[in-house]
Amino acid sequence: MLRFQYPLRFAHCDSAGIAYYPRLFELTDAAIEDWTPAVLGFDRRTMHQSRGLGLPTVDLHADFTAPARLGELLSFDVALRRVGGSSIDLSVEVQCEGAPRFAVRLTQVLMDLAGAVPVAWPDDLRARLMNAKEPE
Amino acid sequence: MLRFQYPLRFAHCDSAGIAYYPRLFELTDAAIEDWTPAVLGFDRRTMHQSRGLGLPTVDLHADFTAPARLGELLSFDVALRRVGGSSIDLSVEVQCEGAPRFAVRLTQVLMDLAGAVPVAWPDDLRARLMNAKEPE
Amino acid sequence: MLRFQYPLRFAHCDSAGIAYYPRLFELTDAAIEDWTPAVLGFDRRTMHQSRGLGLPTVDLHADFTAPARLGELLSFDVALRRVGGSSIDLSVEVQCEGAPRFAVRLTQVLMDLAGAVPVAWPDDLRARLMNAKEPE
Amino acid sequence: MLRFQYPLRFAHCDSAGIAYYPRLFELTDAAIEDWTPAVLGFDRRTMHQSRGLGLPTVDLHADFTAPARLGELLSFDVALRRVGGSSIDLSVEVQCEGAPRFAVRLTQVLMDLAGAVPVAWPDDLRARLMNAKEPE
Repeated sequence: MLRFQYPLRFAHCDSAGIAYYPRLFELTDAAIEDWTPAVLGFDRRTMHQSRGLGLPTVDLHADFTAPARLGELLSFDVALRRVGGSSIDLSVEVQCEGAPRFAVRLTQVLMDLAGAVPVAWPDDLRARLMNAKEPE
Repeated sequence: MLRFQYPLRFAHCDSAGIAYYPRLFELTDAAIEDWTPAVLGFDRRTMHQSRGLGLPTVDLHADFTAPARLGELLSFDVALRRVGGSSIDLSVEVQCEGAPRFAVRLTQVLMDLAGAVPVAWPDDLRARLMNAKEPE
Repeated sequence: MLRFQYPLRFAHCDSAGIAYYPRLFELTDAAIEDWTPAVLGFDRRTMHQSRGLGLPTVDLHADFTAPARLGELLSFDVALRRVGGSSIDLSVEVQCEGAPRFAVRLTQVLMDLAGAVPVAWPDDLRARLMNAKEPE
Repeated sequence: MLRFQYPLRFAHCDSAGIAYYPRLFELTDAAIEDWTPAVLGFDRRTMHQSRGLGLPTVDLHADFTAPARLGELLSFDVALRRVGGSSIDLSVEVQCEGAPRFAVRLTQVLMDLAGAVPVAWPDDLRARLMNAKEPE
């Protein structure tokens, strides 16, 4: 599990002064963006532009426990839960000083961007993923 | 079921030229925002500022069937699936000219904004919701 | 001058219940996105993906007269003010039922996306622009 | 002058793989949001919710020198250029490893949120601002 922290900014809040949930998915995506080079060894730019790969989300479940408020420093705990043939399952659990805010579970599929088809994990990436995967 | 249509704009697309999924939740929220006055009889501004009520999302499940592309006119079909004591379940199915793009199922809870506690649907709103609910 | 109208949505508002200004630039860009095919004869997708052209903003000036509020239907009046060798100046004046909200003046430059260099307006596009330009 | 750094994320990029300019204003606003407590001594949440003050932008000028690209670490140099009776002028100059990307000059006005009227800088805040102001 890797932890990334971002403040809940003015840009993320709605007129009730709490997080607007589509913005929380942007922050969740930022955490996964920061998780990617730590685990796969290259960043999204390299993934997209040099290796021609994408990792789109095909399934997502979120539950919101408590509203996040302007100025809170949120901790995003990203964990790799499952490694499939061409997919991964990630969980992202978000809290502020130990108090839960929301949690997301996502399935992402490795795609060849040119052909727009799923591709199996190359051996080097699979080895990295198996190493990062949480014990069951 | 009510249908709302919005174009997939440049602002919604990522560097692969397809929809960035947090933006799809903004469009989904726009559809629910337009559904609200059609069903409840008042808009979000009245709900928040005059009636002191909010309707935050507490649970969300999305599956993405095919990428939405820049310039597509997307149809958002919003249907009310369940009416609880202080909650509702909505489904939003999104397609482009009959081809599915993604679908979202959400649970929202009626909240008193001042007290930050769930409240039961008032009788007038419950009657409107029961009238709008899809047959099972 | 062409007019486009969009509602100020929940997604666009900050915790004071008024428009968050970076979001107003997204709406301004939506108006220019809708102005493009009306004047140039093709949309942004065609511009980018088929013709290999982009029209990035290089200079922007905005003044904000009054806050836009949740639920307002905003009118965006897009006018072409100047046609240069490879650039255009646009003004976008925004009001709600006749009351001004904000105004933006932008300079955009036609770029060849592959070479990342400015290119002169092709004759067919220049003719269309000169036809759309406001009298001085 | 204070410097803040943020990565240009996937969320900020358009389908050409470069920064979408309304998103650059969100990042600019993040820099001003981080500048606020460093200079005024309290954050935006306190400003809005405890002191009932807002600091909306009334005038903005931006020029874009070069496109910012996915993955770049951008430096935002925020400087206070002028202190008026109830306003300030800020400049935000943005570069990546010394290469300029864009620059913004903004005028913001201190507002009483309840009355929606400009208010003069209180003495304590004026003293802090005069201390932070760049020499002319």
